[in-house]
Amino acid sequence: MQETLLSRIEDPCDLRRFRESELTQIAQELRDYIIEIISQKEGHLGASLGVIELTIALHYVFDTPDDLLVWDVGHQAYGHKILTGRREAFKTNRDYGGLSGFPKIDESNYDTFGVGHSSTAISAALGMAIASKLSNSSKKHIAVVGDASIASGMAFEALNHAGVSNVDLLVILNDNAIGIDPSVGALKEYLTTTKSGKETGQDNIFEALKFDYSGPIDGHDMNGLLRELKRQKTLNGPRLLHIRTVKGKGLKQAEIDQVRYHAPGKFDKITGDLTPSDTSMLPPKFQDVFGHTLVELAEANEKIIGITPAMPTGSSMKIMMQAFPDRAFDVGIAEQHAVTLAAGMATQGLIPFCNVYSTFLQRAYDQVIHDVALQKLPVIFCLDRAGLVGKDGPTHHGVFDLAYLNCIPDLIIAAPMDAMELRSMMFTASLGLDLPIAIRYPRGRCNSINWRSTLGKISIGTSRTLSRGKHVAVLTLGPIGVTVQKLIQENQLSVTHIDVRFLKPLDKNMLQSVFESHEHIVTIEDGSLIGGLGSTIKNYAFSNPSIGDESKKAYSVKIHSLGIPDTFISHGPTEQLYKEVSIDEASILNLLSKLLNQ
Amino acid sequence: MQETLLSRIEDPCDLRRFRESELTQIAQELRDYIIEIISQKEGHLGASLGVIELTIALHYVFDTPDDLLVWDVGHQAYGHKILTGRREAFKTNRDYGGLSGFPKIDESNYDTFGVGHSSTAISAALGMAIASKLSNSSKKHIAVVGDASIASGMAFEALNHAGVSNVDLLVILNDNAIGIDPSVGALKEYLTTTKSGKETGQDNIFEALKFDYSGPIDGHDMNGLLRELKRQKTLNGPRLLHIRTVKGKGLKQAEIDQVRYHAPGKFDKITGDLTPSDTSMLPPKFQDVFGHTLVELAEANEKIIGITPAMPTGSSMKIMMQAFPDRAFDVGIAEQHAVTLAAGMATQGLIPFCNVYSTFLQRAYDQVIHDVALQKLPVIFCLDRAGLVGKDGPTHHGVFDLAYLNCIPDLIIAAPMDAMELRSMMFTASLGLDLPIAIRYPRGRCNSINWRSTLGKISIGTSRTLSRGKHVAVLTLGPIGVTVQKLIQENQLSVTHIDVRFLKPLDKNMLQSVFESHEHIVTIEDGSLIGGLGSTIKNYAFSNPSIGDESKKAYSVKIHSLGIPDTFISHGPTEQLYKEVSIDEASILNLLSKLLNQ
Repeated sequence: MQETLLSRIEDPCDLRRFRESELTQIAQELRDYIIEIISQKEGHLGASLGVIELTIALHYVFDTPDDLLVWDVGHQAYGHKILTGRREAFKTNRDYGGLSGFPKIDESNYDTFGVGHSSTAISAALGMAIASKLSNSSKKHIAVVGDASIASGMAFEALNHAGVSNVDLLVILNDNAIGIDPSVGALKEYLTTTKSGKETGQDNIFEALKFDYSGPIDGHDMNGLLRELKRQKTLNGPRLLHIRTVKGKGLKQAEIDQVRYHAPGKFDKITGDLTPSDTSMLPPKFQDVFGHTLVELAEANEKIIGITPAMPTGSSMKIMMQAFPDRAFDVGIAEQHAVTLAAGMATQGLIPFCNVYSTFLQRAYDQVIHDVALQKLPVIFCLDRAGLVGKDGPTHHGVFDLAYLNCIPDLIIAAPMDAMELRSMMFTASLGLDLPIAIRYPRGRCNSINWRSTLGKISIGTSRTLSRGKHVAVLTLGPIGVTVQKLIQENQLSVTHIDVRFLKPLDKNMLQSVFESHEHIVTIEDGSLIGGLGSTIKNYAFSNPSIGDESKKAYSVKIHSLGIPDTFISHGPTEQLYKEVSIDEASILNLLSKLLNQ
Repeated sequence: MQETLLSRIEDPCDLRRFRESELTQIAQELRDYIIEIISQKEGHLGASLGVIELTIALHYVFDTPDDLLVWDVGHQAYGHKILTGRREAFKTNRDYGGLSGFPKIDESNYDTFGVGHSSTAISAALGMAIASKLSNSSKKHIAVVGDASIASGMAFEALNHAGVSNVDLLVILNDNAIGIDPSVGALKEYLTTTKSGKETGQDNIFEALKFDYSGPIDGHDMNGLLRELKRQKTLNGPRLLHIRTVKGKGLKQAEIDQVRYHAPGKFDKITGDLTPSDTSMLPPKFQDVFGHTLVELAEANEKIIGITPAMPTGSSMKIMMQAFPDRAFDVGIAEQHAVTLAAGMATQGLIPFCNVYSTFLQRAYDQVIHDVALQKLPVIFCLDRAGLVGKDGPTHHGVFDLAYLNCIPDLIIAAPMDAMELRSMMFTASLGLDLPIAIRYPRGRCNSINWRSTLGKISIGTSRTLSRGKHVAVLTLGPIGVTVQKLIQENQLSVTHIDVRFLKPLDKNMLQSVFESHEHIVTIEDGSLIGGLGSTIKNYAFSNPSIGDESKKAYSVKIHSLGIPDTFISHGPTEQLYKEVSIDEASILNLLSKLLNQ
């Protein structure tokens, strides 16, 4: 195999030794290398292909890592990783113990700021730029932000502050008109025709925010990029460089089907053809159960609305968007707005299903409290990707939701064990509740092919008893219950198994009965032990309805809690992570066997 | 006393019976009425005075409550309340059991959406407008938003969505260049010169977001307002009307000193002079202890930075802003940005004190997790107005922070009992920690005049034992400990009193010792019982370091938890609210006496 130029680049110093005329070849090699690896390993493809030229030009022109480069979101940072000492390590991308799929502050000193959630880069880079100014440093500070991300509120807050700061900050707007799904909103339309106020006499939107605006320029024209970045390097103050790129650039199919090739799974590195896989016999994803069920409910009730903040494909809200385009809304990366929009709709009698990834609902926490729960508005939150999400890692694990929602008054918290329960919970909520409800479910496939059950109503706050034993009771919340059910059946364990279903309100009748008739209680959840099911059950143990004393744990029962410990969990295959936190089959079986033999 | 026109207005129907030429007199009467009452009762003054003409014109022109009017934040809604059936009730404004100081959805059908936190109105009104469109209703939808509030990210998200919605939405930008403190940021400067693209050839910032922009017009010119609102009533689609107003309009001193007269306390209704009160012998506010201590620390260490999202006066960050203008930042109503800005600074070795009201940190919850804790960046959060805040009520109580922070790994959570402890915690944090820390303290005065203690370092995760007894141990977190200390001394109670200081990490040595030597443990906190100190201690009771069994509560100790129950707490004097939730002196003494006599 011929030695590539890329193979001689261990870090950006090596890159800078090449002639400008060689950078286009390096771009081709970098593209090929990413395609080669991602075609086999899977991962995020399109975003990184779109910024190959930009990545090379940035590291060529600026003195990274002394100059501080912040990538927003980080899906696009594969090229950056490869050029900054991680070319070989990139073969472990997203593996357990391998490279993170996102820039990560303790992975490389070129990763100046850990990312994953969108729209943080301008704030972080501004903080760095202020620090440089205070120490009279001449460092340069660059934030690379996509057009979908810059439309999020947090980015606007940062622009509004940065515009009146007198520091060195270059914001590069990577405008490709798509995030994971195509960008939406007024700004996106505006960006297609943006002109500088120097041409028109009135400031454009970035100039209005006191940024020195340049562009738009072609983000795939290496020479143009180099020229402009060199010019930018001589400037100071807040500046915005608008570049136009094509997501998936260089792989034809990725350019054409940009949504599919955001993270395409395995594919042929030459043709780009997706590697066929027959999933017809697999159970459906929870996401698809959600999407189809929502349409089913919406067909029966015209008050039902769907809302997603920029995740129509990932959440399967697109099914509703196709079926009822007037009643389903992709509001962009705007979780705060999504939640309060739903609240506004609910005041008028609509029944909004607001689907937000568990980890992203952290962005709208105040709105859930202040706009929804405080007003008892019956918004239905469907929290997708709850629990451990696998290879996306700690920025994306949805493990805090049970804890942060549990303290909110007047909010129902539910977690279906399987697809049929999810459907029943959605159906129950659609009938009209007095209170808001959060229904959390994980990323990925459910347990059963036969999920198209007749819709049945669930009584809010009731659990299900799935098996009965004598000494040991297992209380599960969510799909981990399927694992427990399987273990009980396969090993003929004589344990009581309760699918708790509702963290709030708790099924106190069940709890009283279980506490009075068992010696060991095991709680299992795929969320933070602090504040979640285990914590709640231990607190319950201090209430004693039999003797009317709320202070004393009257029962002699022992409580064993399994769940996410008080630490951030890294990335890797979900099964591996389950093992790490001891909620895998072997760990659970081990505990149950031990308790049964006591 | 002469009968006023205002006294004949029970609701907007009555208002609409007057001639337009009489509205100016009504405006004068409404102003006088608000001044009359607020001068005696206290409350928010300036904001409502600034929108008197707008309030009258809106209710005169639009068919409220069928047309849906949403006030953002709500400080400015006193006139609205008085005109909508609550003229007499307004005399109970902010009283326990009386009117809320903010629009409240269950107080009146003219209050279409409860507010308190900023920047929610456009999202809510858009939700309503979509609902109207789906039901083919011809309702009109109006959101009134201040210039400080519209610069917050959430408002931008809503504008970005609304601009491409095809629904009826009128956003009225009430531009007075001030929130509670003067507005900051690039947008604020831009608004002083905004012109329509119809005049200039390129869209202004609102037109860029696809809004039909009108203005700016004088918000105190009744005839001009009526004319423009009538015109707006005939239009459809997303529109923004830019009006200029003067906060405090009509009371000279309130116009001149707008910050002071935002909520001026008692004053003379004729002269506007503030009612003098001698506070020189009172202990200082926690806020001032924070502000002065920060400057003291900043004088000794140039790495120390201050950040406030739009609360320089309320938080006393203004003291740092005056002392070190280059090192203290008011970033506007931008909690998300404030937190990630601090994170960016911390990556470069700065020591940022990020001061956010407890209730507003809910707006930056994701940033605390994703940008700070996950990266172990030693940002110092000073959470002001933690616990029950009194008359501002449920939108502003800072009662969830302990619960929502407790589940975050790698975050230290501290609550000083008094001013000296606050200083010591700030000092300790300023020395450089490995992890971020949240230091929460309440609104209002601390307990001691002599607060300028020598700064001493605290060992992270250690408690203080303040008194020793035999059977009963009281564990307190925060200033409620002062109450307990007082009760113990005054009543010579033989109880152990521990100032827990750190909810995280817990002082497990102390806990083990206390659990092994007492029969009753009482926990007291001014935060949510779910997820807070009481919950944590009950969970601790299941760990048993003596016998190495984490499942069994080996101790026979009973645990009694006092704190905020699982319900939203209303507004009123703090003492009254403490009584309501049984953390007042009498309730605590009653419990302790009962336990001691058992």
